[in-house]
Amino acid sequence: MIPKDSMVLLVSPRGKRYLRRFDPAGELHTHDGKLLMAQVAEAGFGRTVRTHLGKPYQVLKPTVHDLIKGVKRHTQIMYPKEIGYLLLKMGIAPGCRVIEAGSGSGGLTVALACYVGETGKVYTYERREEFFTLAGKNLARVGLEGRVEQTLRDVRDGFVHTGADALFLDVRTPWEVLEHIPAAVIPGAMTGYLLPTTNQVSDLLRGLEQGPFCDVEVVEILVRRYKPVADRLRPEDRMVAHTGFLVFARCLEAEREDLAEDADGENAPTEPLGEPLESAQDAPENGWDAPETPPSGEA
Amino acid sequence: MIPKDSMVLLVSPRGKRYLRRFDPAGELHTHDGKLLMAQVAEAGFGRTVRTHLGKPYQVLKPTVHDLIKGVKRHTQIMYPKEIGYLLLKMGIAPGCRVIEAGSGSGGLTVALACYVGETGKVYTYERREEFFTLAGKNLARVGLEGRVEQTLRDVRDGFVHTGADALFLDVRTPWEVLEHIPAAVIPGAMTGYLLPTTNQVSDLLRGLEQGPFCDVEVVEILVRRYKPVADRLRPEDRMVAHTGFLVFARCLEAEREDLAEDADGENAPTEPLGEPLESAQDAPENGWDAPETPPSGEA
Amino acid sequence: MIPKDSMVLLVSPRGKRYLRRFDPAGELHTHDGKLLMAQVAEAGFGRTVRTHLGKPYQVLKPTVHDLIKGVKRHTQIMYPKEIGYLLLKMGIAPGCRVIEAGSGSGGLTVALACYVGETGKVYTYERREEFFTLAGKNLARVGLEGRVEQTLRDVRDGFVHTGADALFLDVRTPWEVLEHIPAAVIPGAMTGYLLPTTNQVSDLLRGLEQGPFCDVEVVEILVRRYKPVADRLRPEDRMVAHTGFLVFARCLEAEREDLAEDADGENAPTEPLGEPLESAQDAPENGWDAPETPPSGEA
Amino acid sequence: MIPKDSMVLLVSPRGKRYLRRFDPAGELHTHDGKLLMAQVAEAGFGRTVRTHLGKPYQVLKPTVHDLIKGVKRHTQIMYPKEIGYLLLKMGIAPGCRVIEAGSGSGGLTVALACYVGETGKVYTYERREEFFTLAGKNLARVGLEGRVEQTLRDVRDGFVHTGADALFLDVRTPWEVLEHIPAAVIPGAMTGYLLPTTNQVSDLLRGLEQGPFCDVEVVEILVRRYKPVADRLRPEDRMVAHTGFLVFARCLEAEREDLAEDADGENAPTEPLGEPLESAQDAPENGWDAPETPPSGEA
Repeated sequence: MIPKDSMVLLVSPRGKRYLRRFDPAGELHTHDGKLLMAQVAEAGFGRTVRTHLGKPYQVLKPTVHDLIKGVKRHTQIMYPKEIGYLLLKMGIAPGCRVIEAGSGSGGLTVALACYVGETGKVYTYERREEFFTLAGKNLARVGLEGRVEQTLRDVRDGFVHTGADALFLDVRTPWEVLEHIPAAVIPGAMTGYLLPTTNQVSDLLRGLEQGPFCDVEVVEILVRRYKPVADRLRPEDRMVAHTGFLVFARCLEAEREDLAEDADGENAPTEPLGEPLESAQDAPENGWDAPETPPSGEA
Repeated sequence: MIPKDSMVLLVSPRGKRYLRRFDPAGELHTHDGKLLMAQVAEAGFGRTVRTHLGKPYQVLKPTVHDLIKGVKRHTQIMYPKEIGYLLLKMGIAPGCRVIEAGSGSGGLTVALACYVGETGKVYTYERREEFFTLAGKNLARVGLEGRVEQTLRDVRDGFVHTGADALFLDVRTPWEVLEHIPAAVIPGAMTGYLLPTTNQVSDLLRGLEQGPFCDVEVVEILVRRYKPVADRLRPEDRMVAHTGFLVFARCLEAEREDLAEDADGENAPTEPLGEPLESAQDAPENGWDAPETPPSGEA
Repeated sequence: MIPKDSMVLLVSPRGKRYLRRFDPAGELHTHDGKLLMAQVAEAGFGRTVRTHLGKPYQVLKPTVHDLIKGVKRHTQIMYPKEIGYLLLKMGIAPGCRVIEAGSGSGGLTVALACYVGETGKVYTYERREEFFTLAGKNLARVGLEGRVEQTLRDVRDGFVHTGADALFLDVRTPWEVLEHIPAAVIPGAMTGYLLPTTNQVSDLLRGLEQGPFCDVEVVEILVRRYKPVADRLRPEDRMVAHTGFLVFARCLEAEREDLAEDADGENAPTEPLGEPLESAQDAPENGWDAPETPPSGEA
Repeated sequence: MIPKDSMVLLVSPRGKRYLRRFDPAGELHTHDGKLLMAQVAEAGFGRTVRTHLGKPYQVLKPTVHDLIKGVKRHTQIMYPKEIGYLLLKMGIAPGCRVIEAGSGSGGLTVALACYVGETGKVYTYERREEFFTLAGKNLARVGLEGRVEQTLRDVRDGFVHTGADALFLDVRTPWEVLEHIPAAVIPGAMTGYLLPTTNQVSDLLRGLEQGPFCDVEVVEILVRRYKPVADRLRPEDRMVAHTGFLVFARCLEAEREDLAEDADGENAPTEPLGEPLESAQDAPENGWDAPETPPSGEA
C-alpha cells in the first residue's frame, strides 16, 4: 500500500521517469498507455504494474536524489555531489533551522527540507518573483512545503530571520551579504557559498577576511562515472568538469576576532583563523586529540 | 546554555580539536591549561572561553563532518565526500530504516544515525568482535547509540532484519552477500557498496547482473581543495586521489526480472535494466517528463 | 616565403582549419571564396591573406598538435595529452628508432615521426589492410613518409625489426605480444601500452609480471580546460574523462630476472622489480642521489 | 658498448638511481660497493653489472623523463606531464629555435634541448645569477650545453634574440613581458606560460587580450597513477593536485588584429580571435575540413 500524498516514481520500460505525488484516484497517461493509480497502490513499491497496453512500469519510492532531479527548473540547479557534501560539512541534519538564498528553482531547498526533517525548518529567500513562485510549486509538488518558509526579498538588504544553525548562499555577489550574516545565525554557525568563477571566489575570500569568519575552506567536488560493465570496466568518456566552487566558513561573534591575536603572540594573523582546521582535514589524523590510524588502509 | 549530553567541539588557539559529550560538571585538561565546563556552558556555542592560563578556546556546535572526523578509528573510515553522496543517492533521510555492514570503527554508522533522525533506525552488522565494541563506543561517545542496533554477525550468513529502506555494504566480498539482500529490504530499495579495487568492482557487477538488481551506477567522488587566499588562489599541491569506488543498485523483486524481456521486444537484454537511468543522470534533462533547462547555465 | 612541400595551416575567419602540404601553384576552394597559394607563399607564416571574396585567412605553421588533429581518421586516435607524456616517459627523441603497433589511422605515427627527426626512424605495424593504407596516406599528407617504415603484419606473430630504442602497443590484447618484445628492442628499452579498460590493464600486468619487464607504471592523463575569460575564469563545464590507461615498463634481458632474487635476499619478489622507481616518481626527491628541493614551491 | 660522454642511468637493487655522463675510466662509489665504469661499458645498456661486493646494478639508457628528474634543483621544476603537453601544443620538434625564460634549475631547458635536436637551438634567459649558473651546470651534466645559449637578463627588458619558432615563459609576471614577444618570434609563433595561481592567469589573459595574440587556451594537466598490481588494481591513494596552469596563445602580427573585425561583420569581437579553435579542440572533429570519426570509440 502506498499512502496518499507520498511521492512515487514510475519508470517506463525505456527508462522514462514520472515523479508524482500519489493520488490513488488518479491516472498517468504515457506513450505506453494509461496507468491506474489504484493499481499502483495495490502493487506497492518495488513492484511492476502494466499499462492498459500491457507495458510494464516499475513503481519506486523516490530517493532525495530523484526528488532533486525531478525539480522543474528554469535555472541551473545544484548537483547531488555538491548538496551531499554541504549537508555533512555544514551539519545540516534533522531538527536544523537553515537559511538559504536564493531559492532559484528550489532544487537545494527540496534537499534541505528532506534533511531537516519534520522538526527542522528551511527559510529560503528569493528576490525575483518568478523564481519565488517556481520554487513554491516545486516544493508543493514533492509535498515538502510545510517544512519551508519562503521570503521574497533581496538578501543584500538583510535577513528577517535570526538564530539559524546554518546559512547557504547561492547568489552572484555573496560578499555584499556578509555583513548581515552574524545577525541571522547562532554564533559559530557554518555558512556556505556556491560560486562559478575563480574571480568570485577571490572576492568572497576578501570579504570573509574582514571577519567575523574563520575555518575557511574552498573545494570542488568531482564525480567520475564508470560504465557498469564487468568485463569492460572503464570510466565514462566524458564527465561534468565544473559546476561551481564551494566555499565554507564559520561565522563567529565579533568578540572572537580580537582574541585571534592571542593565538600565536603576534598582533596580526594574516591567515584565516581556521587554517589549522584546513590542514587537519587534509591529514585527518592531525589536530584531533583522538588516536587514529592512517586513512589509507584497505578493506 | 548548552544542554547536558549534547556534543561540544572545543578548538585551541593552535587548531587542536576536542570533541566531547557535554557534562557541565566536567573539566578539560589541555596543554594550554584547564577549562571548566561550567564556564563553557555559560559562554555558549560560538563564544570563546579561556583556560586557567588565559588561552582562548572556541566553543562550537560540531557538524556531522566533525562527528565523523572525531571517530576513534582502527580502520579506514569513509570520507564525508562519499557519505554525502550516498545519503542523497540512496535516499537516506529522516525516518529511514537502514542496514549497514560492516560497522568498522563506526564512522558511517555515526553519519547514518545523524540523518535517519529520531524516527529512523540504523542496523549495523559486524563480524569481528573488536570492531563491534569499538563502533559501540564511538556511537556512545557522540550520543547516538539510541538510534542504532548493533548485530555481531557475518552477513554472508544473511541478515536478521527485514524491510529496510536502504542497505550499504562496506565489506571485502559483497558479491557473496547479494543473495541475502532481497529478504532484508523493501522491494525497490537502494543498495550501495564501497570497494577499493577495480577487480572487486568487476566481481560485484557480475554478481549484480544475476539480479534482481537494476539501475547500476559506479562512481568515484573526488574533492579538490584550494588554498583560501584571495590574491593567490590555487588548488592545494596534493589531494586524496582514491578512497574507493561507490557502486549503487536498486534491489527489485525477482518478478521484475522476467518482465525485463518486454522492455524492447527482445528476449534477453544484456544491459542492466536501469541503463536508461544511468544516462539520464549524465544528461539530467533526459528521461524525465518535466521540461528542464540545461545544467550548464551560469549564475 | 614558404618552401614547397612544407605543411601550412590556413584558418578561416570562423575558425575552420585547412591543413595542406604546400604547393605554391595550387589553390584552396572554401565557402569564403578561392585562395591562391602563390599569394600565401608571398605573405608567409603569421600573415593574413584574403580570398577573392575578400575574406581574411590566417597563414600558420602547424604545430605537431595541429598535424595530429588534422589526421583523417577511421579509428579513435590518441590525444596529445597521452602522446606528450609517452614521448618523455619513453625517451622518444631525435635519433630514436621506435616500433609501434597498430598503425590505426596513423595519428601517433605522425607524432613519433616528428619527434625522431630526420636521423630517427619509426617502424609501424598494422594487420588490417585498410588501416595500413590509411596510415600511409596520412603520413604522406603531412610529408613524413620518409621517416616511417610500414609493415602489414599481425604483431602476435612477432616483429621483423630488431634493436628498437622504444616500443609502443596500441592493440587490443598486448599481453599476447609480450613474448616477442625482447627480440625487437635493445636491452632496457622502454615499452608503452594504451588500453581502454581496467580488465585489460590487469591482464597486461599479469603478462608483464612473467618478465623480463620492470619499472611498471600505470597512469591516466587528464586535461582540464578553462574558459579563457579574465574576469570570469572558470573550468569548462565538461571534459574528456577517459581515453585510456597508459602502461609503461622497461624490457630487460632474461638474465636480469634471475638477479632479482639478490635484491632483498629473498627468493621470490612478488612485487614488480621496478617498484622503487614507481614510488620514486611519486615523491621525485627519493631514489636519486642528487639533492633536490621539494616540488611544491611556488613561483 | 657505451660511448664516452653519453648519459647512463645506474639503478641499485633498492631502486636508488645514479645518472652519470659516461666516462669509461671512472668509478661509482655506492653503499653497495664500488662499480667500475669499464665493466659497465662492456656490459652495455639493459645489462646488469655487479659491485665489488657482488650487488647487481642495472645499466640503463636514460629517457628524457630520467634526465629531467635527475636535474639538481633549487627551484620547483616543471613536471613531465606539463612538458610533454607543451611540446606538442607548441610544435617544439627537431630543428626548432625556442626562447625560454626563466631558466630556473634548467629542467625544462634540458627537455627542450633534447627535442630540438642537433639542428635546433634553445635560447634560455635568467635574471638571477645563481640560477643562470645552476642551469648551466645541469645542462653540462647531461651533455646538452651545445644546443643551448644562455642569457643573463631580465626579460621584462626585452629579448636579444629574434625569429624564434616558439617562446615559453615561466616567470612570475609574464604580462609585463608580452610587449616584447612580437619582436622575438616569427609571426604566428606559439607562446606558452606556466602560472601557479588563478589571479595570475586572469592578469595574463587581460594582457593577451590587448593583442596581438589569439587562440588562447588555459589548461591543467593531471596525472593519476595506479598501483600496478594485477589483482588489486586501484589508483594511488594520493596524487599531485596542482603544479600550475598552462596558458597558450599564438602571437600574430599587429596587422592581423585589424582584420578581426571582418570575422563576423561586427566591429568589435569581444572573444579572442582563436575561440573557434578552442571549441574545435574540445570536440576535435569540428573546425577541420577532414572527415573524422568520433573520439570515443574503443580499441
